[in-house]
Amino acid sequence: MGCTAPCTSAPEMIRIFVTGGTFDKEYHDLSGSLAFKDTHLPEMLRLGRCRIDVSIATLMLIDSLDMTDSHRAVIVDQCRQAAEERIVITHGTDTMVDTARALGAVFDADGDKTIVLTGAMIPYAFGSSDGLFNLGSALSFVQVLPPGVYITMNGRYFVWDRVRKNRDNGAFEAT
Amino acid sequence: MGCTAPCTSAPEMIRIFVTGGTFDKEYHDLSGSLAFKDTHLPEMLRLGRCRIDVSIATLMLIDSLDMTDSHRAVIVDQCRQAAEERIVITHGTDTMVDTARALGAVFDADGDKTIVLTGAMIPYAFGSSDGLFNLGSALSFVQVLPPGVYITMNGRYFVWDRVRKNRDNGAFEAT
Amino acid sequence: MGCTAPCTSAPEMIRIFVTGGTFDKEYHDLSGSLAFKDTHLPEMLRLGRCRIDVSIATLMLIDSLDMTDSHRAVIVDQCRQAAEERIVITHGTDTMVDTARALGAVFDADGDKTIVLTGAMIPYAFGSSDGLFNLGSALSFVQVLPPGVYITMNGRYFVWDRVRKNRDNGAFEAT
Amino acid sequence: MGCTAPCTSAPEMIRIFVTGGTFDKEYHDLSGSLAFKDTHLPEMLRLGRCRIDVSIATLMLIDSLDMTDSHRAVIVDQCRQAAEERIVITHGTDTMVDTARALGAVFDADGDKTIVLTGAMIPYAFGSSDGLFNLGSALSFVQVLPPGVYITMNGRYFVWDRVRKNRDNGAFEAT
Repeated sequence: MGCTAPCTSAPEMIRIFVTGGTFDKEYHDLSGSLAFKDTHLPEMLRLGRCRIDVSIATLMLIDSLDMTDSHRAVIVDQCRQAAEERIVITHGTDTMVDTARALGAVFDADGDKTIVLTGAMIPYAFGSSDGLFNLGSALSFVQVLPPGVYITMNGRYFVWDRVRKNRDNGAFEAT
Repeated sequence: MGCTAPCTSAPEMIRIFVTGGTFDKEYHDLSGSLAFKDTHLPEMLRLGRCRIDVSIATLMLIDSLDMTDSHRAVIVDQCRQAAEERIVITHGTDTMVDTARALGAVFDADGDKTIVLTGAMIPYAFGSSDGLFNLGSALSFVQVLPPGVYITMNGRYFVWDRVRKNRDNGAFEAT
Repeated sequence: MGCTAPCTSAPEMIRIFVTGGTFDKEYHDLSGSLAFKDTHLPEMLRLGRCRIDVSIATLMLIDSLDMTDSHRAVIVDQCRQAAEERIVITHGTDTMVDTARALGAVFDADGDKTIVLTGAMIPYAFGSSDGLFNLGSALSFVQVLPPGVYITMNGRYFVWDRVRKNRDNGAFEAT
Repeated sequence: MGCTAPCTSAPEMIRIFVTGGTFDKEYHDLSGSLAFKDTHLPEMLRLGRCRIDVSIATLMLIDSLDMTDSHRAVIVDQCRQAAEERIVITHGTDTMVDTARALGAVFDADGDKTIVLTGAMIPYAFGSSDGLFNLGSALSFVQVLPPGVYITMNGRYFVWDRVRKNRDNGAFEAT
């Protein structure tokens, strides 16, 4: 049998940019509030027994409601500079669509980069998180989707300019 | 912008066949041993906030070391009868490759069915499982891979006749 | 052998009053904040396979920083009215000492009630909580301590007027 | 107010002897079976934010069904040699009563040692364990019970010669 898809998923390196979001929030016991300490990405990849070559860089650790145009400029710039053609970005869900748009305006389907944004509705550290499911999903889609900018949430992918977050149920949906 | 990939992942129904494996094992407190009770698939999909339409059927709940040719015949037959073109099968890792081969001999790349087998090295019920990551991965790959039979483990996919399980580290690798 | 302690712990009913605190906080996914929904006490007792007869009443579900004198008056009053002689109160740690003092001024060592306050530094719902340990501890101490008002945290008990919370490390210590 | 109980629980060192049992079992992913690797006691004490001085020694890591008279002789001997007057022993539940009897024959209520055995019905590593609850309970009872040998399970304590494990529901009950 000849494979019509490559016989295994791409052995090439995948870049992961961490920006924060619910994904990486933790409970800070002395203040009794939610805060960032470190990304959980390496631990999550270990838990998932992921054997893809990945290169992780933490660009920022912020709530996506605090993300400004200059933060987005950093993300766009880092994606541009990345040697890897396949990039996953972890991001807060509140403004994930905005960052996808900033990226979509630059990296289009005629380019050579496949960029997938993902996040979580419940912090990974809180036990009942969707984060591990979303990470497995994002890392899979990024290996097989053609160049372009996508959001991966709820087991689905969405092209950057055809998606919104439904504020009532927290789910992403096609527009 | 015109999408070169579909603008969102397939809205069509995905079939999930449960066959057991480590994925669904639980600790049975009175006997102190590992056993099957029920599949955790619905709970895992809820945790992952999966919003793909799926139809789950439990074909069997067995350790894959106990899987015989007649069990495999049931799986092949159920895949053949399924109305859905995209099928995920949860399966023990020990003989996942054997079942993939039984399926690969029937459903080839010229057909219309994309079949993805996945499993876990640690039971989902035990807290530190790779199951949720693998499920996110399998449900994503099945939406975008062309017809054929695949194994999804460790964040990667493998075509059915180019994969083996490495008994030393428990990882799947291309052959 | 004659038992010098009763041969088993008291078969009598224990009263549990829930007042909120970190113990019962949850992550609210749509708002991205911490909030109360319901007490986790019944689930925790089930997990701990507790076979003491308990009667649970939720008096309030508030952050202990929001607890006022009138809230404390309710707690004191409920303890006074309780038919049970052994009472556990779950409470936020920030003002647990204040509530212990309000109770200690009323229920003293000459009375017939043993009252134990406990709480958690990490919400039970967040997986890595000290709550289950503290609950096991509080339910044990309440069965064997003589009448009086106590705080149980960090595996220890403290009489109500000889304890403070160390704000630097979150631990309770004798004064 | 004069305390009729000591004003805080004993500041003296508590000895913890680890013998194995369900408490410390883990899932071994390559063999797909349950096995011992290391005790989880230090991690559990950290999670419970326990601030009692404890000294932990692992005497053995075995299933209590494999425990022989010579194993029990080791446990009795270690308790005899221990400088501490308060001792917690983690133990499999299947033969916990037998070991309690071996200890009870030596350390009686006229002695100076308070010995508490405890265990778990679900391994601590499996997320939904009763272990942390039981540990909090055992460490509390051991601080306040008079000299003697006890079993602590299900939120209760039992004197060594008045207890049995109910094989039908896994609970300990008074005889």
